[in-house]
Amino acid sequence: MSALAAVHATPGLAAYMAEIEAGLARAVAVRAGLAAEVANEALAAGGKRLRPLLCFLTSRDDDPRLAPGIAVELVHLATLVHDDLVDGARMRRGLPAVWSVYGPGPALATGDYLFARAFAELVPEGDAAVAALADAALCLARGEALQRRQTHDPETTIDAYLERCALKTGKLIEAACLLGSGGDERLGRYGLNLGIAFQIADDILDCAGQTQETGKIPGTDLREGTPTMPLLLAARRDAAVRSALAGGPLDGALVRVGATNALARSRDAALEYAARARSFLGAEQHREELEALTYAVVDRAA
Amino acid sequence: MSALAAVHATPGLAAYMAEIEAGLARAVAVRAGLAAEVANEALAAGGKRLRPLLCFLTSRDDDPRLAPGIAVELVHLATLVHDDLVDGARMRRGLPAVWSVYGPGPALATGDYLFARAFAELVPEGDAAVAALADAALCLARGEALQRRQTHDPETTIDAYLERCALKTGKLIEAACLLGSGGDERLGRYGLNLGIAFQIADDILDCAGQTQETGKIPGTDLREGTPTMPLLLAARRDAAVRSALAGGPLDGALVRVGATNALARSRDAALEYAARARSFLGAEQHREELEALTYAVVDRAA
Repeated sequence: MSALAAVHATPGLAAYMAEIEAGLARAVAVRAGLAAEVANEALAAGGKRLRPLLCFLTSRDDDPRLAPGIAVELVHLATLVHDDLVDGARMRRGLPAVWSVYGPGPALATGDYLFARAFAELVPEGDAAVAALADAALCLARGEALQRRQTHDPETTIDAYLERCALKTGKLIEAACLLGSGGDERLGRYGLNLGIAFQIADDILDCAGQTQETGKIPGTDLREGTPTMPLLLAARRDAAVRSALAGGPLDGALVRVGATNALARSRDAALEYAARARSFLGAEQHREELEALTYAVVDRAA
Repeated sequence: MSALAAVHATPGLAAYMAEIEAGLARAVAVRAGLAAEVANEALAAGGKRLRPLLCFLTSRDDDPRLAPGIAVELVHLATLVHDDLVDGARMRRGLPAVWSVYGPGPALATGDYLFARAFAELVPEGDAAVAALADAALCLARGEALQRRQTHDPETTIDAYLERCALKTGKLIEAACLLGSGGDERLGRYGLNLGIAFQIADDILDCAGQTQETGKIPGTDLREGTPTMPLLLAARRDAAVRSALAGGPLDGALVRVGATNALARSRDAALEYAARARSFLGAEQHREELEALTYAVVDRAA
């Protein structure tokens, strides 16, 4: 059994995740209208639901609360809808992106709707929870802005790239752990580092993955000039990769990335963040599953 | 002295509004980065700050709290940035819209940033406040979606138009009054009706106003096929207006709107909502100013 399959076999988890799905559907359907309808499609497109999974695993309750899991997943979905819109990405997990079906207006309203619903969902959880989610949402927006600034810039430092990973991915996964655990800072640090490892692995997949498996066309980052760790490391070794990243011709550049040691070095970095995430774990009830996740996020096919 | 000038002479108001400006600047600048920088420009573009004004006027405290005023204005600004982006509107109050200067990516991230900041700002005000703002934000997104659905549809009913006014304008002004007054439902109803009157008046200005005064080019609604009350009423009387609203040629259609009784009838409707707003007022400390506002929103040049 793979590490991730073992995690999913955790007692109580399947029931919790089913309740999360029902809760997401209910949250989105609270008000009728086009935004809700479109949001429901975004929801139905599925996904790993990694963030609610972390809310479950970090919870100390025998009966983990649903609202945190629903709220973080709603913010995640809002971000996906907005990101696809602004990136002009026509596909999401092998399905057409919301904006490419409904147009930019409904996509924008849907993202805003999901965002507002997330906060509405979290209100009964109290001020600290709302503040943690607002902080993560701010970081997502800052990360998106930072990404634009770094676009087509092969001079982006690895530190600046890692900051972007923390903002765009780490902070919401941190929030999932904080909300799940009722504010355990140690588990928050676990989540932040897990998120960075996850993002580096995602960026490696974009250089090496297959469309079939990931539902996304490999080489997207290079085509869009998004400087990821593997691309930045490869650009230091290969002038053609560097020029492609800066907006020059792409011919064969992705193959050249694979010919450097950039993928292996990026994987080492992802493993390092995964190890750092583990270092924040203590005697949690689901410690084993939380540990398994740190391996699973680095070694995955999608 | 005009009704609005009298309102602005209210003791303590100028100081409050100055603190709101400082608070908005501080809220936006909490984190450095492109989103904050762009948000600051959106902020500097100014505006009437009607919503914080209502927070002040509906407050029962001698020293009205700033957070509600800052939060509602941040949500309002977020909506403007997103709406301009999705409408492709290049100008906002006589200045270039955020997206037309910085591009769609930063504009989207900036809207999300302002949105998240609003919720972060409101956390210390407690659960009911966050819930009221989340509800208003949901309505804004639903209103935006409804507007897309009504675009180029001259069959849109007046009721459906009024629902859009309530969602896109009324609910956030209602939220301003609820947050200002600490949850007084009566003042909430005042705000909802005031907001609808405000929106109808705005839509009349779009048919009749001058660029110089409003900072927006008249006829925008007709050009974009947004069915407003004056356009819907005129379309019932004039087939050329009806056809223009449905996406046909615009030649002279705006002049034809002015030739019907549509503007006068729309003004009557706005006055009716203003009167309804007044009917919810009691012995509030700032009753006179709140009354004056109901006149001022209907009769204004911009």
